[in-house]
Amino acid sequence: MSHPLVGIVMGSDSDLPVMKDAVEMLDKFGLPYEVIISSAHRAPELTTDYARSAVERGLAVIIAAAGVAAHLPGVIAAQTPLPVIGVPIKSGPLSGVDALYSMVQMPPGIPVATVAINGAKNAAILAAQIIGATNPEVREKVLHYKEELARAVEEKARKLQE
Amino acid sequence: MSHPLVGIVMGSDSDLPVMKDAVEMLDKFGLPYEVIISSAHRAPELTTDYARSAVERGLAVIIAAAGVAAHLPGVIAAQTPLPVIGVPIKSGPLSGVDALYSMVQMPPGIPVATVAINGAKNAAILAAQIIGATNPEVREKVLHYKEELARAVEEKARKLQE
Amino acid sequence: MSHPLVGIVMGSDSDLPVMKDAVEMLDKFGLPYEVIISSAHRAPELTTDYARSAVERGLAVIIAAAGVAAHLPGVIAAQTPLPVIGVPIKSGPLSGVDALYSMVQMPPGIPVATVAINGAKNAAILAAQIIGATNPEVREKVLHYKEELARAVEEKARKLQE
Amino acid sequence: MSHPLVGIVMGSDSDLPVMKDAVEMLDKFGLPYEVIISSAHRAPELTTDYARSAVERGLAVIIAAAGVAAHLPGVIAAQTPLPVIGVPIKSGPLSGVDALYSMVQMPPGIPVATVAINGAKNAAILAAQIIGATNPEVREKVLHYKEELARAVEEKARKLQE
Amino acid sequence: MSHPLVGIVMGSDSDLPVMKDAVEMLDKFGLPYEVIISSAHRAPELTTDYARSAVERGLAVIIAAAGVAAHLPGVIAAQTPLPVIGVPIKSGPLSGVDALYSMVQMPPGIPVATVAINGAKNAAILAAQIIGATNPEVREKVLHYKEELARAVEEKARKLQE
Amino acid sequence: MSHPLVGIVMGSDSDLPVMKDAVEMLDKFGLPYEVIISSAHRAPELTTDYARSAVERGLAVIIAAAGVAAHLPGVIAAQTPLPVIGVPIKSGPLSGVDALYSMVQMPPGIPVATVAINGAKNAAILAAQIIGATNPEVREKVLHYKEELARAVEEKARKLQE
Amino acid sequence: MSHPLVGIVMGSDSDLPVMKDAVEMLDKFGLPYEVIISSAHRAPELTTDYARSAVERGLAVIIAAAGVAAHLPGVIAAQTPLPVIGVPIKSGPLSGVDALYSMVQMPPGIPVATVAINGAKNAAILAAQIIGATNPEVREKVLHYKEELARAVEEKARKLQE
Amino acid sequence: MSHPLVGIVMGSDSDLPVMKDAVEMLDKFGLPYEVIISSAHRAPELTTDYARSAVERGLAVIIAAAGVAAHLPGVIAAQTPLPVIGVPIKSGPLSGVDALYSMVQMPPGIPVATVAINGAKNAAILAAQIIGATNPEVREKVLHYKEELARAVEEKARKLQE
Repeated sequence: MSHPLVGIVMGSDSDLPVMKDAVEMLDKFGLPYEVIISSAHRAPELTTDYARSAVERGLAVIIAAAGVAAHLPGVIAAQTPLPVIGVPIKSGPLSGVDALYSMVQMPPGIPVATVAINGAKNAAILAAQIIGATNPEVREKVLHYKEELARAVEEKARKLQE
Repeated sequence: MSHPLVGIVMGSDSDLPVMKDAVEMLDKFGLPYEVIISSAHRAPELTTDYARSAVERGLAVIIAAAGVAAHLPGVIAAQTPLPVIGVPIKSGPLSGVDALYSMVQMPPGIPVATVAINGAKNAAILAAQIIGATNPEVREKVLHYKEELARAVEEKARKLQE
Repeated sequence: MSHPLVGIVMGSDSDLPVMKDAVEMLDKFGLPYEVIISSAHRAPELTTDYARSAVERGLAVIIAAAGVAAHLPGVIAAQTPLPVIGVPIKSGPLSGVDALYSMVQMPPGIPVATVAINGAKNAAILAAQIIGATNPEVREKVLHYKEELARAVEEKARKLQE
Repeated sequence: MSHPLVGIVMGSDSDLPVMKDAVEMLDKFGLPYEVIISSAHRAPELTTDYARSAVERGLAVIIAAAGVAAHLPGVIAAQTPLPVIGVPIKSGPLSGVDALYSMVQMPPGIPVATVAINGAKNAAILAAQIIGATNPEVREKVLHYKEELARAVEEKARKLQE
Repeated sequence: MSHPLVGIVMGSDSDLPVMKDAVEMLDKFGLPYEVIISSAHRAPELTTDYARSAVERGLAVIIAAAGVAAHLPGVIAAQTPLPVIGVPIKSGPLSGVDALYSMVQMPPGIPVATVAINGAKNAAILAAQIIGATNPEVREKVLHYKEELARAVEEKARKLQE
Repeated sequence: MSHPLVGIVMGSDSDLPVMKDAVEMLDKFGLPYEVIISSAHRAPELTTDYARSAVERGLAVIIAAAGVAAHLPGVIAAQTPLPVIGVPIKSGPLSGVDALYSMVQMPPGIPVATVAINGAKNAAILAAQIIGATNPEVREKVLHYKEELARAVEEKARKLQE
Repeated sequence: MSHPLVGIVMGSDSDLPVMKDAVEMLDKFGLPYEVIISSAHRAPELTTDYARSAVERGLAVIIAAAGVAAHLPGVIAAQTPLPVIGVPIKSGPLSGVDALYSMVQMPPGIPVATVAINGAKNAAILAAQIIGATNPEVREKVLHYKEELARAVEEKARKLQE
Repeated sequence: MSHPLVGIVMGSDSDLPVMKDAVEMLDKFGLPYEVIISSAHRAPELTTDYARSAVERGLAVIIAAAGVAAHLPGVIAAQTPLPVIGVPIKSGPLSGVDALYSMVQMPPGIPVATVAINGAKNAAILAAQIIGATNPEVREKVLHYKEELARAVEEKARKLQE
């Protein structure tokens, strides 16, 4: 399990501060990943090559992050049978609503699994859930993570009572 | 491969006309599924029981459709480690924007893989992609489907030229 | 009148700075309350237990605050016959519009009494009005508070004239 | 228990088709009510008189419905210590979003308990919950109603399985 | 011409920094005015008294500024035959869109002449135009002001060329 | 009082069905008017000539209606010292929100007195209020009209009681 | 001047009824064109081939129409130095706002010249203006068309007066 | 090629910091330009004169930038057969959405080629593409620029891998 299972692609290096949350969660789940910068518009060939070679390179899921027009996840999804998770990045005067609409409103045939604006962490958890859909070991890790979340809330609730 | 792999849950039987597109796509991919009506608000126990038993019943993915406040996918996602796909249903004066925001803007920890408003067909394709992420046979079917889509467009393009 | 009449539940301790306005107003009205942290998604069992035990623990009203997807008030309202007041919290790129829609657009059967985004103070006043609906003593306090508000405006108006 | 406990006020008789859902729910709960047409703008004195006399006439809750600018619930809430439930009516090119914002965004001091656009049924349930907050008999009726809702969903779920 | 012709009413003293632009423009046009703080919700009687006495006190126009639910201009317009100019104030998470909708979407019968969000300066110019509609001297001042605006732009254009 | 006091300008003859409400109200108030079709974009010279000659032709107020980009009222306001009332017309996929923003968000210096989307009736009432600002006879007519409105509401309220 | 100068590409044959307005305007201007169906997502290679060969095939401008996620114009613009005009198509629950944002909010480097939602006619006029930017004969045709528009408005204005 | 080919007009000198990106790109492409301040509302004659003389002064394209009501590009487009590129400026509480709608939603007959909010750089690239539509030398420069963009992305991608 040493080749990357998850590809994280982002349209610009300015998306890195948001997307490091995804990297940290994948580390936590012990899922190998790769991080790529590409651009649907400025580097269309690089993007196409990346999308088309994803299966043979052994990826199981792709996370694609982009802001404003945010065509990156859709353009990748058009060229691979793998599930593509879209992270709309908050940037510009529309605060990411443009990116959200552009990702989530994909036409019939080519879905993008869209998470919250700047939802990098959830993108990684969703990637783990997708791999865990048919891999009990990874699913177990997701389950443990959810139990951790519940315990953290209970802890805070308890502290507040004291 | 005879027990359901995909659970389709919807908040109301009025969502059935939209969600039959998901059913048809899963039939096309040969993926076994079950269709359930539940409601996060009117039948919270039924919903909880369904979510909590999903793994042991052998499901790999859950598709949850709901309109307006549309808490159903989030409430299910809170109680299962499986990936949950959310379909915002167009209903009421906000035309599904309320349902979209309520699904896609899930807080860190509990993602919902949101597709387009009324995007039932894409929810099923995404379910197939998720299962195909680690199952080459299903992935192949997704790939063939995409080739079909391309051929259909090329066919239309050709007809227009004549 | 020493057990709590009003339960204040919030999805995260980051909501505390907003919700302290509710606490101060309840203190002003002399209404006993409790403050709880829970999460519809990260701690669903804690939330369910809280909602289901509310009546027997003597609560009359629940105030629930949450941001983004903001399912907390709806999930609680689904599991108690008590009136639930929802406070959409301003957070994230949609500035609380997502939380507002998710609370106010509840489906027929399960209302959430929604106040303004970050409207913690009004949530507490509404809680007092609800208790005062059938309790003349509390209603009188609300009446006095409204007279205070009018006097404060008149005072400012007078100062401006001078 | 023969004088009205709930006042239903609407800005125009064109709101009657929507608001009859509230009337039916109050009948179901056995709560006495009155139905009034008034207008914050076209009949300000009538509205003021109604709001100011509400307590002495024995009302416990007021439901106020209005479309577009929709000032009616806020104007009533300004002049009574009773809880006021606002129902934004879908009308005009903004589909009720204008009415929703105008009701829910009330300034600190004067809350309006806002329900969904056209949410007349939920306004009545909320009225019952408010009266039930301190009246166990009415609360019991709300509880039974919620059990009915759950049974209806379970019934539909069962039928779908067959 | 020493009694006030224009009444400037605002819902809160926090609106003063925005509304001083209106004051400066009225000074520039030499139109006498008065500045009042009132609140449609917190001081409904003060507001009613102000609106009802406006004609007999010799006012020709009222400028009313308010944020969020922003009922003030509508409530005043309901109780005076004078033209009422509404200034939606930018405040809160909706940035004044709530106030804009609440003012501009007044129902048939009771108009509010709405200007831009925070458009205090334009409110004063509009007040001068309204008085100037039948008063050639004031109209002349508006005309001169517009010529000044044009010269200022031409001046900037010229400077840029150099 | 036989030359027109109010100019009604609309961008297209498709706006006539909406704008006839303005015509009827001006008839009711006995205010002479003229109805013009012009277009800020397709007939810029006609529009400029109309705006520049308005004062000398004796107009007191201009009502300008337009849909989508809806520049007409702003372009007229730029070229006359008279008050210009803007009526955003509901047309196209944005339902008049585009027209509303384009009219109401005029920059400092050149106000447009904006009324509701399709608010032709209120535009005419506002025109009467503007003329009535300094003309007691017209103001009296506005007052009577408002009393009529109140009586109509009271009549409906009475009928409902019976 | 017999090979196509303008390429009209649309994502689906359901866009044809809207786009025929563009065809008619290009006929009116005597500009040769071709009409193509392609899809950024379902037929990415066809789209790429079309965009990359556009210059050598002698096109001067491309008009691309698409609804919902509407990536088509951006994907084409990424792969040709020609100006690309985007026509957002009204379809689905967001009425074309999703398509508008997705086209107009293109990132720095790759512009799409966006026209109104369903603005097929204007797309063709813009194409003519672009060709006319350096071609006096075509510019003259645009000028004549604008004069026609003005005359049509003047004609309607005159008829209304009679 | 020494007289200006591109006219950059802006409504206010406060737009200069945004619009300098356009200036820099035109410098990069070696296209001569002029920068003008005018205002559709405050200096309507200056604007008209500028638009009407554009062709005879040898311009090929006009870039017009404006915020809020943002009528400038439409008013210019109404008076010249040249292509007009609109840049909506982010300013005021609506963050440029008002300006975007006002530019892009132009009525049939008079298009404005709208780019992203604050998209000054893309406006200049589009201007180069428009000139390049019929000028191979300029088109070649656009092509080189796009290759540069791709190389820059590939460079960043490579650095990230190291």
